[in-house]
Parts: sequence; structure tokens; C-alpha cells
Amino acid sequence: MIKTIDLNSDLGESFGQWRMENDEEILEIVSSANVACGFHAGDPVGILQTLKSAQKNNVAIGAHVSYPDLVGFGRRKMDIASHELTADVIYQIGALQGLAAAAGTRVSYVKPHGALYNTIANDEYQGLAVIEGILAIDPKLVLVGLAGSKILKLAKERGLRTIAEAFADRAYTSQGELVSRREAGSVFHDADLVAQRMLQLVTEGGVESIDGKFTPIKADSICVHGDSSSALEMAKQVKTVLQQAGITIRTFMHS
Amino acid sequence: MIKTIDLNSDLGESFGQWRMENDEEILEIVSSANVACGFHAGDPVGILQTLKSAQKNNVAIGAHVSYPDLVGFGRRKMDIASHELTADVIYQIGALQGLAAAAGTRVSYVKPHGALYNTIANDEYQGLAVIEGILAIDPKLVLVGLAGSKILKLAKERGLRTIAEAFADRAYTSQGELVSRREAGSVFHDADLVAQRMLQLVTEGGVESIDGKFTPIKADSICVHGDSSSALEMAKQVKTVLQQAGITIRTFMHS
Amino acid sequence: MIKTIDLNSDLGESFGQWRMENDEEILEIVSSANVACGFHAGDPVGILQTLKSAQKNNVAIGAHVSYPDLVGFGRRKMDIASHELTADVIYQIGALQGLAAAAGTRVSYVKPHGALYNTIANDEYQGLAVIEGILAIDPKLVLVGLAGSKILKLAKERGLRTIAEAFADRAYTSQGELVSRREAGSVFHDADLVAQRMLQLVTEGGVESIDGKFTPIKADSICVHGDSSSALEMAKQVKTVLQQAGITIRTFMHS
Amino acid sequence: MIKTIDLNSDLGESFGQWRMENDEEILEIVSSANVACGFHAGDPVGILQTLKSAQKNNVAIGAHVSYPDLVGFGRRKMDIASHELTADVIYQIGALQGLAAAAGTRVSYVKPHGALYNTIANDEYQGLAVIEGILAIDPKLVLVGLAGSKILKLAKERGLRTIAEAFADRAYTSQGELVSRREAGSVFHDADLVAQRMLQLVTEGGVESIDGKFTPIKADSICVHGDSSSALEMAKQVKTVLQQAGITIRTFMHS
Repeated sequence: MIKTIDLNSDLGESFGQWRMENDEEILEIVSSANVACGFHAGDPVGILQTLKSAQKNNVAIGAHVSYPDLVGFGRRKMDIASHELTADVIYQIGALQGLAAAAGTRVSYVKPHGALYNTIANDEYQGLAVIEGILAIDPKLVLVGLAGSKILKLAKERGLRTIAEAFADRAYTSQGELVSRREAGSVFHDADLVAQRMLQLVTEGGVESIDGKFTPIKADSICVHGDSSSALEMAKQVKTVLQQAGITIRTFMHS
Repeated sequence: MIKTIDLNSDLGESFGQWRMENDEEILEIVSSANVACGFHAGDPVGILQTLKSAQKNNVAIGAHVSYPDLVGFGRRKMDIASHELTADVIYQIGALQGLAAAAGTRVSYVKPHGALYNTIANDEYQGLAVIEGILAIDPKLVLVGLAGSKILKLAKERGLRTIAEAFADRAYTSQGELVSRREAGSVFHDADLVAQRMLQLVTEGGVESIDGKFTPIKADSICVHGDSSSALEMAKQVKTVLQQAGITIRTFMHS
Repeated sequence: MIKTIDLNSDLGESFGQWRMENDEEILEIVSSANVACGFHAGDPVGILQTLKSAQKNNVAIGAHVSYPDLVGFGRRKMDIASHELTADVIYQIGALQGLAAAAGTRVSYVKPHGALYNTIANDEYQGLAVIEGILAIDPKLVLVGLAGSKILKLAKERGLRTIAEAFADRAYTSQGELVSRREAGSVFHDADLVAQRMLQLVTEGGVESIDGKFTPIKADSICVHGDSSSALEMAKQVKTVLQQAGITIRTFMHS
Repeated sequence: MIKTIDLNSDLGESFGQWRMENDEEILEIVSSANVACGFHAGDPVGILQTLKSAQKNNVAIGAHVSYPDLVGFGRRKMDIASHELTADVIYQIGALQGLAAAAGTRVSYVKPHGALYNTIANDEYQGLAVIEGILAIDPKLVLVGLAGSKILKLAKERGLRTIAEAFADRAYTSQGELVSRREAGSVFHDADLVAQRMLQLVTEGGVESIDGKFTPIKADSICVHGDSSSALEMAKQVKTVLQQAGITIRTFMHS
């Protein structure tokens, strides 16, 4: 039985006057923070503020790298060339490293965002471009990817340490894949149910699939959200239930 | 008599399909390269390529930080708040540090670009914001500023090492200030004349002002351009004349 | 005694995933909508949606043109060249006209936003550039400016129809100028007080200044806000008090 | 035998300090100008200047609409939602209409650019989104598309007038499709050969395919380039050869 699990969340997603997320509140819950790097969200002032809060809360920092698509929030797949993606990844990690240094902390891992995350789960071409970018700037950075996806294997083969993650509020198929958001029942909204599912994930190594079968999910980190008060409540509930069951919340991202 | 001088030039100023500068050629001439960081120019692919060339030519790398103004090429003064400017400076230096690491080199200095350069020469408010950004990310970075300007004094007081620079093709007033580009005779176009002026600068510690008086200019670096074939010729001529007079071209930017 | 007044508000200020303003609610209150054009806020999808709501509510449409500064929300003065500003203004008005046509409505006026609004109130150079842009695309467009400012005179001399506006929640000096936001007491937060002041403005042609004197303000439009629930309440209160006093709320923007 | 043909070229593709194309020279050759709208290239100042030159040369103006991807020059396919693409198309056409009005001319047609052009040739989903955008802003605008592609049929069914275009310097398969740029022999560089091929296209209604067969191509416009001196020479040669054969160069874009 696993006794320890990481909780991660997306942060630093404000941009100029536009605020998003409850960074202060969610930083008291999670152990790892995926911080926007300016390509899908995040301006330098906002990122720096989030990093300072993360530093105070002793939360691990990840570079939430994205396609360059601010207006689309990085949620639209782009047919970007390999060398472009590699350079974009390096630029974003570097910018975050700089701001992290200024905040008295450091970047420990990389978690691709949105459409890039989904694409590289299975697209070897873009996946290798991301891996190459990480290797070029700092091979000790950990790569976070979808539990069970090809990118994790690919990254390990190239020498990167990887962390598999599960999504707290998402339904899984009996093959261990995420049910598409377009399908009914793909997203859970009941905080108690979600917390129980995550308890099952940590203690039994899997969850019940959308068609009612136990499905193994091998994950060391759980993604929770903080972009609404209900999301925040759900994240708190997940943490409380896990801790009451004797499970330690701790980051695995530090190399 | 000074026996050594640094030659610097602005590089990495392409953006996507738009090419600018003759980076390969100018990198064979200069000892220090001010590399765009993406705010006035420079996309990650182009910056990385320039950094790799700089690394091969053993040229020192500076972060050419700018206001966020791509369409204006950073040439328009912005009334930006202090904390915004500080965070912008950190972000840009960090991004360049990341790309430099990937290129097997490192960032040694910071030279603000365009309107920011001119503004902080005398504007203490924005000047301090830039200094604070440099101190926050790496206090060993050297700051390059206009010879004789207030920013150099300000930066030294805060503990930064500074390098004063002169502009090869620009006329100076008898007070040692740059003649405004709007004035007739403010920019020299004759490569031989420019080279002789720079020889005088290095050997005599000053140049003839626009009204015909010898004017002391205390500078350890000379800015040359590579954005046209004539600019490139001028840069070569400056280097040739200096070297023939026994002067060593060498960067002072490494801490 | 004036029997009619226009109420205007800033709208369409969302950007991609980032939402701002309560466009639907405020459109039921105001008679004129200053709609962002993409330079300080507003993506095409969000602008189009706002325009469709404005059309349904029979609200006049204004182009809320700005400096090109998304991350700064157009709130930072830029030393932009005259021909650049003119072209930027035309581009933004044109884009909004296109979306307005698609929404079954049209652009009736132009209200510069943020730092551009404040700058052209007194800066003739940038003011003329804005006026030239409006004249070039459609000289029948009305220009909205700060009551008592130079830009209104300048625009009239060039043949533009102008509308002077007052700010509902702002204090005025006894010279009829806005009290700087940096001063204590510059912004009112009490909806009843604000509504009474606007009633005084419409019925008596002025308000009480920050130092207690009656100050004439000649304005045909009042700017109210919708960017928070309290702002929305204040806007409603202003409208209710004015209507209860027999004043008609109606746009003056149509040429 | 056809006696008239249109020559079109991509223009207005500069951005700020970055210049591209020889707009003045190419405008003396072509009868239709596809002008960038700011999403892949083109800043308001540069677009306005190009439109003024086009107006002087009596050249028809087309909106060269693109995905929002400045750094990628619109050459990377994006999985953009239908309503986003529709609004983006309207915004760009509107902006160009505004600048065209200021230049004393008007927008007559729409030619999608780069990756969007290629995508909608066969992707009905994005194709319909573009068509819907054109219909929403002005159903009299003509749509230019790849000769033989599905988008032309789709647009006609929705009531748009369409113009099919051929590419002067590209090889075709025997099925009348463009040979991919990745294939050897896909692009011709010999101006005389290209001119003869275009003469054949106009007089015989087709060209020789890459595997040596006569292939019918039904096109009313030929795309030539102006982005290099050799491209410019090729464009001149095409025009000269066509005119010497008694063919009139004239735009078909005006509705």
C-alpha cells in the first residue's frame, strides 16, 4: 500500500488585470504547483507573486509549459515544428527559473499544459520535442504526464525522471484512459465521491471505471483544481479524506 | 593608455519569419552580444540559434531586456510601474539564461534596449526597477549603460558591477552626451571616420564633440551595428583600425 | 434644465478564458457601450457576444480604442508616434465595425481608453493623431472625451461631433478637473451619494467639488461601471434616481 | 480560350521594424493584392501604407485572414473552435476594411492565408467557419480558394461568389492537386518555365503534371510572389509572357 501521494494544481494563471484561480488558498492544500510561464497565461508580475506564495508554503514548483496561445489559453492543438516546440519549452522553463530564483525557490519539474499535455500523451513527435527541451536546459527536471501514457515511457528512455498523475474529478475508461470531456459523466462534481475515489486510488491502486469495473491507475500525483470555490472545496475534501486515512501529502518532484 | 576594449552589438533580433541582422557575420567581429529576449524582438528558435553561434565564437552574452512592445520594437517609452518592470526584467533574463544553458553558454550581463535604455540613463524610478530585477535574479550580472549616465552610479551604489559604453557611429555634445538622432550630424556614416574616432576614444579617452571640442568619454565597451552590410563594414573597420594600433578586443562582461 | 442624459460603460473587456465585467447586466442599464477592440482587452469571440447583447438592448456602440498593451490593460502611457497611433485607431475601429455589422448593429462613436484617454485630454500631439484616425475612417463618428478637456475643442475644430462625459464615482476639483486617483477621497463608494451627485449634475449642471464648492460640469454622458456587483448596484441606483426625477436616459451618440 | 486572368500576390507582410516583400514593386505587376490583417503579419502602419499603394495602382484588395499566430506566420495548423475562427475572420476583415476606407479603397475579397488556406481546402468544419464569418460581415465578398478544392463548392452552396486560383511556381499531381512542398520538384525556380506553364494554364486550361500528363486546372487567378528579387522577376516574366500572348491581366475580385 502506498502511504504517500502528491497533490498538484495549476497556478499563476492570471494575466495582467485578469485574475484567475485562488492561488493563495490552493497553495495551502497542494504539495506541487504547476505555474504558468506566460505562453497560455501568466504575466511576470503575477507569476512572481504566485512563486513567492509557493515558496512560503514550501510547495514544489513546476513549469506549466504551453503552446504559444494566450487567447486560446493553450487549449488548441498546434502543428508546431519540433525545433520550435523545443525552443519554446526551454524559453518558458528558463523564464520561470529566473522568477523562481527571485522568489527564493526553484523549478523542480515540468508539466505541459492543456492541448500540449494531451497531444504529447500519445504523439511521439511533439513528445520528443518537449523531452529534448527539458534535457537541453536541465536533465534533472522531472516530467509529469498522464498515468499510463506513452510520453512517460519515452521520457524514461531518454533519461528523465517522470511522475504519473491522475485527475481527481475525471472518469476513467476500463482501459485506464480518461473519458473524453464531451461524454456524459466524464467529470465528477461531488466532492465526497471524488475524495473517496482518490482514497481508493491511493490505497488500492485504481478507481472504478465509467462502466463499473476496477481499473488500475498507477499515479504518484493527483491533479486538483482551485479555479472556483467549489473546486477549492473539492481539493480540501480530497486532502482531508486522504490525511484522515493516514496518507501523507508530499511532493515527489524534487530531484 | 587603455590597451583593451570591448565591442558589443545587438543580436537575435529576428522574429519568426522576419529576419534581421547578420548575426553570423557580426559574431566574428564583436566580443559581446546583446541578445534580444522576446519582448522587443527574438523568438525562442532564433534566440537559441544566435546563442549557439555566440558560443562557438566565444562571445559574451548579454540580456537585451526591453519594454514589452514587439510591434514598436521596444523603441517607445512606456510609463510602466516599478514592480512590473522589475518582473519583466527577471522574466527576460531568465528566459535567456535557459536558452543560453541549452546552447552551452551563459548570460554574463544585462543591457537594456531602446527606449528603456534611454529612459533609465536618467530616470531613477525605472532605473532602480531594472537594478532590482538584476539583483533579484543574479547580483553577479554586469549592467551595461550609457557612459556618463546616472544609471551607472545608481547601479554601483546597489552593488552591481557596471560597464560604460560609447556608440561608434554617434556624435557627442561637448558635455559628453549623445546628440539627439533628430539633429543633423548626429549619426556618422563614414566607416573610416568612425574607426578613427574610436581609436581616439580608446587611446585618448575621448572624442571630438559636434562643436569641435575634445570631450572625455570614459567607456569600456563600444557599440557597433550589424543590421546592414554597411554597418557590418563599419564594425569591421573599427575592429581593424583598433587592432592595427595594438589594442586588444576583449569582453569585460564576465564576472 | 436638461431633461436627458446618456449613461455609458466599458464593456467587452474579457479576453479568452479570462472574464471581466457583467456585460449582460450593465447593458440593461446603460444607453451607450464602450466596447474593447482587442488592444487592451477583448478577443473577437467575446466582443461579438457583447455586441449581440448590445444590439438586443438597443444600446449605442462605441469603439473603446487603446494603446497596444494587453498585459498592461492599456493603462500605461506610451510615447507612440503620431502615424502609429492614427493607424492603430483606424484598425481598432474597423475591427469593431466588422464585428458590429455581424451583430446587426454599428459603431456610432469612439471613446479612447485608459492611459490614451487621459493623455489626449491634454496632449495635442496624440489627440490630433486620434482625431485624424477617426476622420480617415468615418468623420460621422462621435468622439467622447473628458468634460472640459482640450481634446473636445480640438476635435470640434477638425469637424468631429463630440460628447463630453462626467464620471459618476469620481470627485472633481473646484476647477472642474478630476481629482487624481492617488488622492484620498477621489473615488466615491456610496451608491446613494453618487446618484444624488449625478442628479445634481443633470439638473444643476455641476457637482460639489472636493473642497465643497459648486463646480459647473458640462456633460452629456455619465460613465458608470459594471465590473463588480457593487459597481452594478451603483449604476442601477444612478439610473433609478435620475429616472424618478423625470430625466430620460438616452444615447446622444448616434449621428 | 480564356482571354483574361487575374494575378494575385501576398502583401502587407511586414511587422513593425521587420520588413518583408517588395510591396511597391509587386503592386505594379499584380491585379489583386492579398493584404495581411495583423494575425500572421501586418501592423496597422504597414498595412495602411500597402493599401495606399494598392489604391494608387488600382489593384483589388483581399483580406488575407489567418490563424492568430504571429510568431509562426500563420503556417501552423490550429485546432481552433468554429465560433472562434468565425469571429477571428470577421475581426480581421473589419480591421482591413477600416484601413482600406482610410486609404480610399475597399476590400473586395477574402483569401485565407497559410495553414488556414490549406486546412479549409478540405476541412469542412473550419471551411464553414470561414464562410460563416464572410457571410456575417459582407456576403458580397468573394472567396479565393485552391482550384479544385472542396471549399469552393461549399462556399458557392452558401451563396458566396468564389475564385479558383493556381500557383505559378508549384507542381501539380495528375489529379490536379498541389505536390507537397516536402517532395522533390514541388517548386519551380525557372522564371521562363513558370511563365510558359502559366501561358499553358490560361490558353489550354491546364498544366503538365509532375508525372508528365496534361492536367486540367480551372483557375481564374494565378498566385505569384514578391518576397525576393527572383520572385519578383518571375512575377514580371509571367505577366510579360501572358500579355505578349494577348491575354489581359485583370482582377475578377470586384463584386
